[in-house]
Amino acid sequence: MTELTINPDRLWDSLMELKQIGAYHDEGTGLQGVRRLALTDADAEARRRCVQWMLDAGLEFRVDRIGNVTATRAGTDRSLPCVLMGSHIDTVATGGAFDGTLGVLGGIEVMRALNDAGIETLRDVEVGFFTEEEGVRFGTDMLGSAVTAGRIPLQHAWQLTDIDGLTVKSELERIGFDGPTPERRPAPHAYIECHIEQGPILADADVPVGIVEGVQSISWQRLTLHGEAAHAGTTPIGSRHDAGLVAASVVVELRRMCDSGDYGQLRATVGTFDIGAGQTNVIPHRAMLTIDLRNPVDDLMTRAEKDLATYVDTLAHQHGVSAEWERMAKTAVIPFDSRVQDLLADTAERLGLGYVRAMSGAGHDAQEIAAICPTAMVFVRGEYGGISHTPREYSTPQACADGTRVLGNAVLTLANQPAAAQEPQ
Amino acid sequence: MTELTINPDRLWDSLMELKQIGAYHDEGTGLQGVRRLALTDADAEARRRCVQWMLDAGLEFRVDRIGNVTATRAGTDRSLPCVLMGSHIDTVATGGAFDGTLGVLGGIEVMRALNDAGIETLRDVEVGFFTEEEGVRFGTDMLGSAVTAGRIPLQHAWQLTDIDGLTVKSELERIGFDGPTPERRPAPHAYIECHIEQGPILADADVPVGIVEGVQSISWQRLTLHGEAAHAGTTPIGSRHDAGLVAASVVVELRRMCDSGDYGQLRATVGTFDIGAGQTNVIPHRAMLTIDLRNPVDDLMTRAEKDLATYVDTLAHQHGVSAEWERMAKTAVIPFDSRVQDLLADTAERLGLGYVRAMSGAGHDAQEIAAICPTAMVFVRGEYGGISHTPREYSTPQACADGTRVLGNAVLTLANQPAAAQEPQ
Repeated sequence: MTELTINPDRLWDSLMELKQIGAYHDEGTGLQGVRRLALTDADAEARRRCVQWMLDAGLEFRVDRIGNVTATRAGTDRSLPCVLMGSHIDTVATGGAFDGTLGVLGGIEVMRALNDAGIETLRDVEVGFFTEEEGVRFGTDMLGSAVTAGRIPLQHAWQLTDIDGLTVKSELERIGFDGPTPERRPAPHAYIECHIEQGPILADADVPVGIVEGVQSISWQRLTLHGEAAHAGTTPIGSRHDAGLVAASVVVELRRMCDSGDYGQLRATVGTFDIGAGQTNVIPHRAMLTIDLRNPVDDLMTRAEKDLATYVDTLAHQHGVSAEWERMAKTAVIPFDSRVQDLLADTAERLGLGYVRAMSGAGHDAQEIAAICPTAMVFVRGEYGGISHTPREYSTPQACADGTRVLGNAVLTLANQPAAAQEPQ
Repeated sequence: MTELTINPDRLWDSLMELKQIGAYHDEGTGLQGVRRLALTDADAEARRRCVQWMLDAGLEFRVDRIGNVTATRAGTDRSLPCVLMGSHIDTVATGGAFDGTLGVLGGIEVMRALNDAGIETLRDVEVGFFTEEEGVRFGTDMLGSAVTAGRIPLQHAWQLTDIDGLTVKSELERIGFDGPTPERRPAPHAYIECHIEQGPILADADVPVGIVEGVQSISWQRLTLHGEAAHAGTTPIGSRHDAGLVAASVVVELRRMCDSGDYGQLRATVGTFDIGAGQTNVIPHRAMLTIDLRNPVDDLMTRAEKDLATYVDTLAHQHGVSAEWERMAKTAVIPFDSRVQDLLADTAERLGLGYVRAMSGAGHDAQEIAAICPTAMVFVRGEYGGISHTPREYSTPQACADGTRVLGNAVLTLANQPAAAQEPQ
């Protein structure tokens, strides 16, 4: 089988060029970061740059009604469903140059490489980027992909507002990306997303790429505890209703649950913990914490949530504190397609690249597109423990190229697959 | 022995009248509270009202250079050291009608009662109030009593500033309480302070008054933990440097230490706990908490601080988190005079009032005056668990009268004690 040869320098140049759009100086790290929130001027400029690269590669592009941009390289049988690559180019407020962007610019590089090699494919090959993956500006992540996959209605998405009350629709119009193409796209033959890992698994295993088995179940809850303020000096230990103590005990218990092994590969994080206008000598009357749980197995997630609730009930009762739960988010495990995973694994082996299979702890556009077609992801190793959502986020030129090689060669295989019996024609 | 009869209604009327000065509507409780920070207009008005009551009782008053006000009822031998009563009339920002005020208005009521009964005493009897006991405005509590007892130099106290940069000295001048009397007063024969308990011990023991054995050792420290931010979904449990988890573990460990009995009657409170701009899906890179420790035994306080430091060192090391300690405050145990305590106990028994002996968990002016003369305190039972520093703070008219009866009758005994051999003439 022919290997598709991608150009590591050209890919890297594109990554470094896009990094300049939305660049800011990060005080904390002293590094140049990227702040390119969805549908801002910086995002618009980055979108136009990507569209120009698509046009330079001879692709036809279109913009749909939620602002997703897709470009097509025609195959020999245009009646067959296409093979789709993609990701996102919006960032968090303190972002880096790779999260999302790698999958988009890697996809464009695959198109260039197909052109360079003069390769004709049976099926159309497409590359695109989805609107507002991060959810930082309008509060809903995976927005563009969720709309295109049909989970979120377009009208609902259009009406979402940012902190200044600006809607998605008005901002799409303002930056000129309110496209005419219907948001519910035809189901592709397959979707592959190349993305930085954002974790340390690949580095720990000393392999350049990962084959993603799916996205873990994610549970976000807010727990508020109501106790009673009292004087630190005069209130005996046994008479206290210390909301802060109960909240702290929950944090410690969550770690115990993770370490116990009773909940599989449970990961628990308390990222916010607030006891209001605290005073050194006043027992906290109120504490609020958020609980982020991840689990690759739905049943174990259910068990963890149930046992945690029981723990909180018992402890709160012991301390005469009341507990109030609020559900912020919950998604079930989303398994990726095993055939696409196997193809990615075969491709990595063929290219001589070591890999591991792993669940994704983070959410990605692929989890939405998985609802409409066979989907999988390639992870690319990150430096510094795979740190992400910070200007320190970094993958080497070699790692970016390796991931894109796996992406491109797997796509090439898929793009030459004939119509399957069950596939819509 | 004659019993001094105090007038419960007159005392209550004074308490209710002073409560109007600095009154505010408290949103949280829906109650009228008192906001009478030191040296504000409200404090000045309350000072003038108290001075008027002192004059009405036929007393001579004087103001010293730190603004402490003292009024004297002459004894038959004015060469002997006086017996002093007192407390404070400044409040916290969300205060009630009893904290401090009871000891001052109770003292004035004792003077009225002595007048009513036509009692002559051997020694002068004095009643006063000290400047800025709460420390809320100028940041140093027990300020006036500490200056008068010589712990804090006058020049230092004068230069303290509030949040707007106004100095103690300029505010004393502005409200006309920059008195001419030297701040280092002659040592009294004894000092007794009547004060609300601000805790549940008397209510739990079902007694109206408490005899205070001293003030606990108080230790305030700020602990800051520095870890590393990372993605909640992608970072394995074993790779985390979770500053929030270490901080929460400290809170739980402190409670275990209190419950263990290894540190006597240790009380530990974490009243502030901050993990910065937290995000649900980000492992906290930083956590800050304050640790308030109280112990009636200095050695046990030392042991608790040492063991806590070891615990934090070990845990922080385990998690790859660094710990930074800051000392905010530390006071040793201040024992009160056993003879004055015994007198208070005898007096309570004579009056048929049940009592318990207890250490004070909170700081009081008495701990400063204890440095210059035999000192003790009478505690008065509070309702609602003895809650204080809130408009809910409440002691019944009967409880206020009972505490003042013990105060007045003990003072009467002391005021008729002849010169002791060691007493300065």
